[in-house]
Amino acid sequence: MDSVDAPGPAASLVSDVFARACTSREAFEGVTSRWSSLVLLALGEGPHRFGELRRRVEGVSERMLAQALRGLERDGLVSRADAGTIPPRVDYALTPLGEAVATGLRDLADVLEAAVPAIDRARVDYDAR
Amino acid sequence: MDSVDAPGPAASLVSDVFARACTSREAFEGVTSRWSSLVLLALGEGPHRFGELRRRVEGVSERMLAQALRGLERDGLVSRADAGTIPPRVDYALTPLGEAVATGLRDLADVLEAAVPAIDRARVDYDAR
Repeated sequence: MDSVDAPGPAASLVSDVFARACTSREAFEGVTSRWSSLVLLALGEGPHRFGELRRRVEGVSERMLAQALRGLERDGLVSRADAGTIPPRVDYALTPLGEAVATGLRDLADVLEAAVPAIDRARVDYDAR
Repeated sequence: MDSVDAPGPAASLVSDVFARACTSREAFEGVTSRWSSLVLLALGEGPHRFGELRRRVEGVSERMLAQALRGLERDGLVSRADAGTIPPRVDYALTPLGEAVATGLRDLADVLEAAVPAIDRARVDYDAR
């Protein structure tokens, strides 16, 4: 696949998501964590304000959403635009790297959404053993 | 994308990964959970025995690996083949649905492995604010 990053000195090192010490494993665990993944999926539909995200991601608390957004912003996946107005207006959007990650998550969600009948059948079979 | 499941009556229902009550959200949380996702990635490289998986997925305990495999088998993503020999030999492999999910996870891991330098830079910038 295409690199989402300009080639640089560090790009010659091999990243390995299986290695505990690798940033990619930490980042993988970050983007696949419960709320972060759903926030990325929501932002894949376009920029959202905080309250819009809270409604879109069913069940997320204010605290967990704020924590997920901070982590995603720190990893450079999400940008935060404060309009500086009163009342305050803050928009959250994906960065180009965030777009690449969100696309991968959306593909995965599509596979699973299409697989719901197969998964339901597999569970019935497994539980009947 | 192509459906991984034969069309059936249930296929006409719309699955929504954002909906708390949807099987796809539960399955999404399942396959993206820490150990399950790494187990799927490992099995994407070919069938593995239990001990091989333990070594490939750095840091997983015997208990967490067994739990992840049971969940993936129940969802129809992983199959378990017991050779019935003494000493026992059990091979774990992806089902066709598991292959589809593992491919999605591998694409995502590729994006993140390539993004390590960008993520490292973003963190330094964020922490320096």
